Amino acid sequence: MDTLFKNARIMTVTPTVKIREGDLLVSGNRIKQIAKRIERKDPSNTTVIDCGGNLLMPGFKNGHAHSAMCFARSCSDGYRLWDWLNRIIFPMEARLEPGDIRELSKVSFLEYLTTGITSVFDMYLNPEEQAQAAKDFGMRSVVLIQPAGYPERYPEYEARYLNGHMVDGLVTYQLGFHAEYTTKYDDLVKTAKLAHKYRLPVYTHSNETLRDVDSCIDRNRSMRPVEYLDGLGIFDHGGAIFHGVHLSENEQYILRDRKVSIVTNPGSNSKLSSGIAHILYYMEKGINIGLGTDGPGSNNALDFFREMYLATVLQKIQTGDPTALDALTVLQMATCNTARLMRLDEADDLKVGKLADIIMLDLNRPSMRPFNDIARNVVYSGSKDLVKMTMIDGRILYMDGEFRIDEDPAEIYAKAQRITDRIRVPAPKRVKRARSR
Amino acid sequence: MDTLFKNARIMTVTPTVKIREGDLLVSGNRIKQIAKRIERKDPSNTTVIDCGGNLLMPGFKNGHAHSAMCFARSCSDGYRLWDWLNRIIFPMEARLEPGDIRELSKVSFLEYLTTGITSVFDMYLNPEEQAQAAKDFGMRSVVLIQPAGYPERYPEYEARYLNGHMVDGLVTYQLGFHAEYTTKYDDLVKTAKLAHKYRLPVYTHSNETLRDVDSCIDRNRSMRPVEYLDGLGIFDHGGAIFHGVHLSENEQYILRDRKVSIVTNPGSNSKLSSGIAHILYYMEKGINIGLGTDGPGSNNALDFFREMYLATVLQKIQTGDPTALDALTVLQMATCNTARLMRLDEADDLKVGKLADIIMLDLNRPSMRPFNDIARNVVYSGSKDLVKMTMIDGRILYMDGEFRIDEDPAEIYAKAQRITDRIRVPAPKRVKRARSR
Repeated sequence: MDTLFKNARIMTVTPTVKIREGDLLVSGNRIKQIAKRIERKDPSNTTVIDCGGNLLMPGFKNGHAHSAMCFARSCSDGYRLWDWLNRIIFPMEARLEPGDIRELSKVSFLEYLTTGITSVFDMYLNPEEQAQAAKDFGMRSVVLIQPAGYPERYPEYEARYLNGHMVDGLVTYQLGFHAEYTTKYDDLVKTAKLAHKYRLPVYTHSNETLRDVDSCIDRNRSMRPVEYLDGLGIFDHGGAIFHGVHLSENEQYILRDRKVSIVTNPGSNSKLSSGIAHILYYMEKGINIGLGTDGPGSNNALDFFREMYLATVLQKIQTGDPTALDALTVLQMATCNTARLMRLDEADDLKVGKLADIIMLDLNRPSMRPFNDIARNVVYSGSKDLVKMTMIDGRILYMDGEFRIDEDPAEIYAKAQRITDRIRVPAPKRVKRARSR
Repeated sequence: MDTLFKNARIMTVTPTVKIREGDLLVSGNRIKQIAKRIERKDPSNTTVIDCGGNLLMPGFKNGHAHSAMCFARSCSDGYRLWDWLNRIIFPMEARLEPGDIRELSKVSFLEYLTTGITSVFDMYLNPEEQAQAAKDFGMRSVVLIQPAGYPERYPEYEARYLNGHMVDGLVTYQLGFHAEYTTKYDDLVKTAKLAHKYRLPVYTHSNETLRDVDSCIDRNRSMRPVEYLDGLGIFDHGGAIFHGVHLSENEQYILRDRKVSIVTNPGSNSKLSSGIAHILYYMEKGINIGLGTDGPGSNNALDFFREMYLATVLQKIQTGDPTALDALTVLQMATCNTARLMRLDEADDLKVGKLADIIMLDLNRPSMRPFNDIARNVVYSGSKDLVKMTMIDGRILYMDGEFRIDEDPAEIYAKAQRITDRIRVPAPKRVKRARSR
C-alpha cells in the first residue's frame, strides 16, 4: 500500500532548512517521489492524505534515551542525584524481571509518536528485550550493546559483527559501554579491541557532571574522561558521547579530530542541575551535535519540542546573546545531525529514496499563527499538540491523536503500572534542600 | 445549564496541592458542589461529562502577557533586543489600525485555551480593544490601564474608580504603567496619587534587564528601579512587577514590605537572554511569585507547561541543586499565587463557591504513565496535548481539540494574517552574532 500526501508544505533539512509546497509519495518504506503535483492513474493501491497545507518534515531522532525507565517518572523530585540513584533507581532496577523492559519501553515509544520522534538511540539493561519491543511496536531503534561486564557476551557480539547482523528489521545495533566511571579497565580495552577489529564507532555517557569528570581525574593520572578514553583507542572509529556538559578545550579538540559527536540532553541536564553544555562552542570547533531526551526518569517527559526550545534558549542564557544558536540549526540538530551519529543517514531527510520516517505538523493550531517564519515557529512555539501524524518506515503509527499500533495502549499502560507497583520501593525520607548560595 | 463532571480526580491547590477522587458540579459560572458522588434527580438541565479518572484542576493564570503581539511571532530570531524593538516591533506597531488589537488578541486567546490558561493579565496599547476582545471571546482578562502619557484619560479613569466600574463582565481593570524607563516623572507621580486616592495596587515592568536597571541608576541619583518607584509611593497599596530578573537585596525587602508580587516569565527571559530570576530567594523572603508567558513576540509560545517546567529547572541550574523549587510549589505559582496578584481570588481553586475556571487534563497520554505522582507529572512531563477541556466562567470553550467559541478560528487566523501582512516591515539586515565568551 502506497501513501500519497497531497497539498503539503514539505520541509527538507539538508544542506539547509527549506520549505516548499507540493506532494510526496511513499511506496513501501521509502519516499518514492516529491513533486509539485503527483497524480496516480490507479488509486486503488494508494491511501491519499490531503495535508491541507500542513507541514511534512523528517521525524525527530532521539539521540539518547533509556526508554524503559518510565517506571521512575516523577520519582526524583526532592532527592539529590545520589539519593535518587542509590535509594530509588538501583533498588527498583534490582527487582526487574524478564519481560519487564520490553513492556516498559513501549510506554516511551507511545510518547515518541506523540512528539514526532521516529527513531531512538536506546541504552539500557537487556538489549534483546529493547530490540524486541521496538520490532513488536514498529519503532525504529538503535540499541546499544554493552559487552563490558558481560564477558560471556563478547563471542556472541563478535560473531554478530563478523556476520554483519547489525541490522535486524527496524533495529540497528551499536557498540558502547555505560561510562568510564562504571566500567573496568579490562572491559574498556576489550571494547576498544572490538572497535578496532571491525572499525566500529563507540558510544558512551561522558562528562555529564563535574563529579564524574573529577573522579576520572583522580583515578586516571589527572586525565579527563575523553583524554583517558582516547588514550585507550576507544574513539579511533568515531562514535558519540552522551551529555558532554563539562568538556575541556583539549577534550573538544580530541572529539573533533576523532569525529566523535556529542548528544546534548538539555532537559535532563537542567533538571538534574548538571549544567549547560557549551554546544555553541563545540559546533564552532566543527563537532557534530545531536539532541536527546535522556530517560523519562530524569527528564521527565520525552518531548522534542521542549528539548529544541531548551537547546536554543539555554545557549542564549549562557552566552548572554539572544541571537545565539539559530532555530534552523536546532532543527538540523534534531533531525539530520542526530541521524548522522546514529548512522541513520537513510532516514535523515525528506528526499527521494530515503526511508519514510515522516511527521505531519498541524499549522492550524494557534501557536503557529500568523505565519512569519514557519520553520522558526516549529522550534520556538511548537508543542506536542501540533503532531497530526507520525509515520515510521512507511507505516502510519499515530494520526489525529490516535495510536495505530497492534496493541491497545490501555493494555500497555496497565502492564507498565503493574510492573511499577511491583518494583516500587518505599520513598526514602526526603532530604532537606541545602542552600548553595 | 449545569455541568456535572463525574469520576474525576480533582486537584485543589490551597493551602497545599492535593488530589482526591470525586464528582464536581458547576451551576452557572460557579462551582456548586464537590463530593465523592453527585447524582441529579432531574438530569434535563445538566450536561454530564464522564471524566474517566482524568484530572480536573484550576485553570492556569497567565500573570503577564501582551496577547495582541502574535503579529511578531518568530520575527526576532537573529536580532538583538534593541534592533528587534526599534527596527521591527515599533515600526509594525506604528502601522496598527483601530480594531487590529481586538482581532490579534483572539489568536492568543485560542492558544490559551489549548494550554489550559483561563485568565490573562494583559498589558498593551488600547485597553478598550483588549477588553472588547476578551468579552467577545469569553476570556477572563485583567486589563492594565495606563493613564501615563495620556493626560486626557486621568479624569475618565478616575471616574471609573470612583463609580466602582472596575469589573465589566469577564474583564477587571488594574492600574499601571509600562516601565520606569519609558514613563515621565510627572506621570509616575500622577499614577501614585491615583493609587493613593483609591488604595489601588500598581503594576509595571521592572528590573527585566541589566540595561534598564543601570539606566535607572544613572538617571535617578543611584537609585535602582524599585527603590526609585517606592520613593514616589507607587507601591504603597501593593501590586506587582513583571519580570524582576535583577533585584538587589534591598529591592527584594521593599517588595516584601509593600506586599508587591513578582511575575516571573522564564521563557521570555531566557529567549531574550535577560537572565534567570532568583525566584527561590524571593520566595524565601516571603514575596508572592506568579507566572507569566510574556508576549508571543518574545517567548514565542504561550504554553504554561513550558513555563512551569522552565520555572523549576532554571532554579535547579542556577542553584546547582536538583531539589530546588519543588513541582508542587510551581503548580501553586501557576494557579493560586498568580490569581492572588491578579486579584482573582474567586477563581483560584476548585472549591465550592469559586468561579468555574476549570481544566481537564488527559491522564491517558503516555507522558502521564505510569502513575507515581500525578501532580508532579503535570509539571515535569505535561504538555498541551493533555488539555482535554478548558472551561471559563462555567462555559466550555475547548474540548477534545475543538474550539467551542462563537467565531470560526479559521476566520480569526485569516484576519490576523491580513493584519500581519499589512503591517510587516522589510526585515532589517541580520546582525552577525557577537561572541561574548
